[in-house]
Amino acid sequence: MPPIDPALVEDPYPFQQHMGARITGWSEGYARFELPMEGFLMNRYGILHGGVHSVMADTCMGYCGCYTGDLANRKLAMTLNLSVNFLSQPKGKVLIAEGRQTGGGAKTFFAEALISDDLGTEIARATGVFRVRAAS
Amino acid sequence: MPPIDPALVEDPYPFQQHMGARITGWSEGYARFELPMEGFLMNRYGILHGGVHSVMADTCMGYCGCYTGDLANRKLAMTLNLSVNFLSQPKGKVLIAEGRQTGGGAKTFFAEALISDDLGTEIARATGVFRVRAAS
Amino acid sequence: MPPIDPALVEDPYPFQQHMGARITGWSEGYARFELPMEGFLMNRYGILHGGVHSVMADTCMGYCGCYTGDLANRKLAMTLNLSVNFLSQPKGKVLIAEGRQTGGGAKTFFAEALISDDLGTEIARATGVFRVRAAS
Amino acid sequence: MPPIDPALVEDPYPFQQHMGARITGWSEGYARFELPMEGFLMNRYGILHGGVHSVMADTCMGYCGCYTGDLANRKLAMTLNLSVNFLSQPKGKVLIAEGRQTGGGAKTFFAEALISDDLGTEIARATGVFRVRAAS
Repeated sequence: MPPIDPALVEDPYPFQQHMGARITGWSEGYARFELPMEGFLMNRYGILHGGVHSVMADTCMGYCGCYTGDLANRKLAMTLNLSVNFLSQPKGKVLIAEGRQTGGGAKTFFAEALISDDLGTEIARATGVFRVRAAS
Repeated sequence: MPPIDPALVEDPYPFQQHMGARITGWSEGYARFELPMEGFLMNRYGILHGGVHSVMADTCMGYCGCYTGDLANRKLAMTLNLSVNFLSQPKGKVLIAEGRQTGGGAKTFFAEALISDDLGTEIARATGVFRVRAAS
Repeated sequence: MPPIDPALVEDPYPFQQHMGARITGWSEGYARFELPMEGFLMNRYGILHGGVHSVMADTCMGYCGCYTGDLANRKLAMTLNLSVNFLSQPKGKVLIAEGRQTGGGAKTFFAEALISDDLGTEIARATGVFRVRAAS
Repeated sequence: MPPIDPALVEDPYPFQQHMGARITGWSEGYARFELPMEGFLMNRYGILHGGVHSVMADTCMGYCGCYTGDLANRKLAMTLNLSVNFLSQPKGKVLIAEGRQTGGGAKTFFAEALISDDLGTEIARATGVFRVRAAS
């Protein structure tokens, strides 16, 4: 996977910054984010909160269907449904979220996400349905 | 709804504290959390990130099936599946997440969540499947 | 629940007839179907196939968002996402599927379904996202 | 894909026979079914009822996690959650449902399904969570 073109990297929005996520890949029908598993992401049991997987799945799938190749020409999407299956616990130090568009058209798109870690552990799989919003 | 018995309020775990959520109700088959919609929760479009709804839905549903009435006797749950439908945008200032158990038994339980705001706007609905872990 | 107005009962479409389902309630944001649990609906283990719950959930939720009160003025919907949780085994002889709209507007709607039996056993709960099609 | 070993083909159970489905592939973590799109499977709009995709997704995913290679040694599974995304309408004459296990262990497994047709059209994608039952 080639490194992302810096010209495609938007300034992180507030919640992205709060979580500590950064985009590391973006092309037609594909997006990839990385998130260091910092202590502030841990749950009641001292392991990564499952909600973090959901946030990252939602994020990478939303982006995968909004690629335009031009930050000045933004395409926006709203999530209609997110479904996440939690496969296993992470063993590494960085969470990797990859989203791929699986179908849809101009108004609605479908995507799937794989959440893994830097050791290759598959942690969660998700699917999403998104509505395309008018660009801004 | 009566205020939660302070004896049932655990210290917030790291991600709960990072999000700013607090538990405001907990009884057999029911849990309720509140989350002020601070600026750091906003998305690319300046509105609440949908991942926040997912985090809160996962949290309140996990808790609703783990009530024991005694913090020294903890019951734990792992999420197997989380499915979230995003109904509308919040209009208020506080997110309210209520989880209710809908079925299941000793090893697995099912729950549903309603995410609303302090103005009564219904924002998201979710369902979850959880596996009960051995208490710690 | 009042009996359905016979003027609102469409002729069953092919798959509905093949399954043996009939509509027993339909009003704004609500639809109800009944399905006798005949032998041909049984699975590999001799109990009702879980796919039957999915069919009935999809059906009652699709209808609940398409009520017009006039069969000559049909509103149609396409399912975008269906998520079903399987709570327990049926004990009775008739499956009852009730769908209720939970949100949405002119183009997209959300619904939830409760699948129970004639003894009141709760068997499955489902949620759905639907796209409204142009009327025909 | 090699043809299925006839020694692995169980007699169709009642609902499978009623739908007209047959198993055409089964190996560790994988199962494949085919279903001719007969007239009795059509919906209110004269196209394949979406519930059919759900039935086939549920079926192929359940089987994919129950392979033992020996019909006398059956492994059984109960669906906990099924989530289906409906991508497009079929164009061909035969529905093909392929399920693949994506995770899990001795008690619970996760799977994904692709529903396509004989022309290669991708029609639906699904995920499932299953609980393994004691063998019979």
